Amino acid sequence: MGERMVELNPVAERLEEDLTALSALHDPSSGGWTRTVFSEPYGHAREWVRSRMADAGLQVHSDAAGNVVGVLPGRDPAAPALMTGSHTDTVESGGRFDGIVGVLGSIEAVRLLRENDVRLERDLIVVDFLGEESNDFGLSCLGSRALAGELTPGHLERVDGEGVSLAERYSRFGIDPSEVLGAGSAWGPRRLHRYLELHIEQGPVLEERGTSVGVVTGIAGISRLVAGFVGRADHAGTAPMTTRQDALVAAARGVLAVRHVACGAPVHGVGTTSRLDSEPGSPNVVPGRVRMQAELRSVEPGWLSDAERRLSRQITEEAGELGVEVDLEWSTDNDVVPTHADVRQAITTTADGLGIDWEAIPSGATHDAAHLARLCPMGMIFVPSRAGRSHCPEEWTDTSAIATGVRLHAATLVALDRE
Amino acid sequence: MGERMVELNPVAERLEEDLTALSALHDPSSGGWTRTVFSEPYGHAREWVRSRMADAGLQVHSDAAGNVVGVLPGRDPAAPALMTGSHTDTVESGGRFDGIVGVLGSIEAVRLLRENDVRLERDLIVVDFLGEESNDFGLSCLGSRALAGELTPGHLERVDGEGVSLAERYSRFGIDPSEVLGAGSAWGPRRLHRYLELHIEQGPVLEERGTSVGVVTGIAGISRLVAGFVGRADHAGTAPMTTRQDALVAAARGVLAVRHVACGAPVHGVGTTSRLDSEPGSPNVVPGRVRMQAELRSVEPGWLSDAERRLSRQITEEAGELGVEVDLEWSTDNDVVPTHADVRQAITTTADGLGIDWEAIPSGATHDAAHLARLCPMGMIFVPSRAGRSHCPEEWTDTSAIATGVRLHAATLVALDRE
Repeated sequence: MGERMVELNPVAERLEEDLTALSALHDPSSGGWTRTVFSEPYGHAREWVRSRMADAGLQVHSDAAGNVVGVLPGRDPAAPALMTGSHTDTVESGGRFDGIVGVLGSIEAVRLLRENDVRLERDLIVVDFLGEESNDFGLSCLGSRALAGELTPGHLERVDGEGVSLAERYSRFGIDPSEVLGAGSAWGPRRLHRYLELHIEQGPVLEERGTSVGVVTGIAGISRLVAGFVGRADHAGTAPMTTRQDALVAAARGVLAVRHVACGAPVHGVGTTSRLDSEPGSPNVVPGRVRMQAELRSVEPGWLSDAERRLSRQITEEAGELGVEVDLEWSTDNDVVPTHADVRQAITTTADGLGIDWEAIPSGATHDAAHLARLCPMGMIFVPSRAGRSHCPEEWTDTSAIATGVRLHAATLVALDRE
Repeated sequence: MGERMVELNPVAERLEEDLTALSALHDPSSGGWTRTVFSEPYGHAREWVRSRMADAGLQVHSDAAGNVVGVLPGRDPAAPALMTGSHTDTVESGGRFDGIVGVLGSIEAVRLLRENDVRLERDLIVVDFLGEESNDFGLSCLGSRALAGELTPGHLERVDGEGVSLAERYSRFGIDPSEVLGAGSAWGPRRLHRYLELHIEQGPVLEERGTSVGVVTGIAGISRLVAGFVGRADHAGTAPMTTRQDALVAAARGVLAVRHVACGAPVHGVGTTSRLDSEPGSPNVVPGRVRMQAELRSVEPGWLSDAERRLSRQITEEAGELGVEVDLEWSTDNDVVPTHADVRQAITTTADGLGIDWEAIPSGATHDAAHLARLCPMGMIFVPSRAGRSHCPEEWTDTSAIATGVRLHAATLVALDRE
């Protein structure tokens, strides 16, 4: 690098005011701080973001994918642009920080650049991506997915619980669905220089180790498992234990196997069973069928495929001992997306220069950044989450910790601009 | 006993004709051989039973509880009567034999008595008990429960899935609900001499051992468990395995504990978990809460209470290791109901005299006989179920095996009449 390290110090009161104002725009009829995609409070929040972006000096528009976009023009309009951002939607009963820290932190960074007369070479584009959280259509990252050209006509035809298509939801929200799939064409090759995203960790690692920020090594790949156990429904009073083919017992062994395979991971790896649906479910009937829903995540593709194989074998063998047959369906929800070495280098060099302690950390959650990685080198900065809680009302990060993240974020943007 | 052993040989063709005719009266819109209580096909079946009873020479009426009652008058109208019977309703998607074998077998026994000029001393009362199977009101054995004085005003106020009360269902089915609770008053003390019921085993024991009939030792008590596991909902991607408080992992251990405690039973005992409902159930969230529904059954009250205690301790300890709290609610659905030694003795002596091989066997399922035990000494005879299947369309017992059961049933009724 060799250039002067830029010191941009966030104004904590201003950050906190923004966090409070935006998180207040939630659905009062739901728990926590709910602001789901396409909802009325989400619409209000985006209006609020537009006005905050404009106040910060950004040129604001909505792109064809429904993303709220603020542009800070650089000296060279022809240079590939620098992009940053995150999202402002939440899960049902979610928290106050997931997503909005990256959007508000980037707006604060823009304010700091202008207040300190730091003029960038490149355009800086701040994006509030549409609908990052997984929704009723079984689809996350609507806005960033569209930009990356990963949204398909089939996605638009999916229907939610009320039977309304995704296309129709776009339309009702004021977004032309016929334009959404082509939204990525604005970002051809070499049009984007780097993407950087600031986000809360959503896990306990940084807090436990007392580290200020995390430099994300990669975004975990997700292998989803739907296992169908088929045993035999029997009378719960008359079928002897020795002759039962109890699908729920086999599935319970499966739950423990999922935990076991992930607990033994020598690298980053987690495994979760989220539900078991047994049939018939009546108190006096031995369950004949169970549907199990589980997943494995890791930033190590090798571990993921190996764990899939070992888990499949264990579940099948243990069920077989009970006379229960298993049908295992694995699907890849997200491939592992490593962050780019150049961007990690820019973050860590900047952090060292600013005296901010950091550590390399995997991201178990998916982010808009995973899709942006298709368009340009990508990196992420994490700030700590209290007790690792996220996607719940208890989600919390101190403003001072966010301010540290914004300080690194802003300075890294400047560093990336100069690369 | 010392008296002449009466040989009454059932007419297999007649039995089979009856079984075929009655099982044909089922709900064609449902799977299997469905004839649930209060349904139209159930009404038709009861009409058919009335006419078959009348053809056999029984004096037919309906009692205040809605039971179809056929009386074969004995020589001494003042002597406590002999009662037998079973039920003609089925579970949803049930089979062709559960219940109706006892009703039709008793009607055949009456025909045999009359054809062989065997006049009983006592009245013989054949009952088709109303609604034996567990119904939408969470109540089994409506008719026998009412006779035993165990139906309460609270039961009548219960509502089914359509919001209709049990009282209203009685009314629509032509039964005066205001009379139902008093139906038992007709059967004061000493009015009934003995109750004997013929039924399919609904389990595999008799078939596996190649035994013709089972002499029931007792009807299993049922301890029901509803366990609430409270852990912590976490992000499935970001929460490390080591810090999770996964309620579903704790519940899965509970499923295996239920199986383990029953598999180790030195006496008759079975344990079944029929469902686990996890919250929130979303693919990307570690389950924070699980509701587990399980039961233990045994004909040994001592084993039941001991197993409850051991299971409670194991579930609580294993969940505690995971940081998951458990709330265990045990309830007694049925107490253990032993059969009466005198009736068992009458059955086995008769079987030995007829050269029918038998063995003592517990009943894991509940029967109308469990309620009749409140009114007089009670006993039951089981015939084998193919592969132990029951409460499913595959339920099967060969006519020849039923005929053997009816032969023993009829002769035992004669023996009991003479006691």
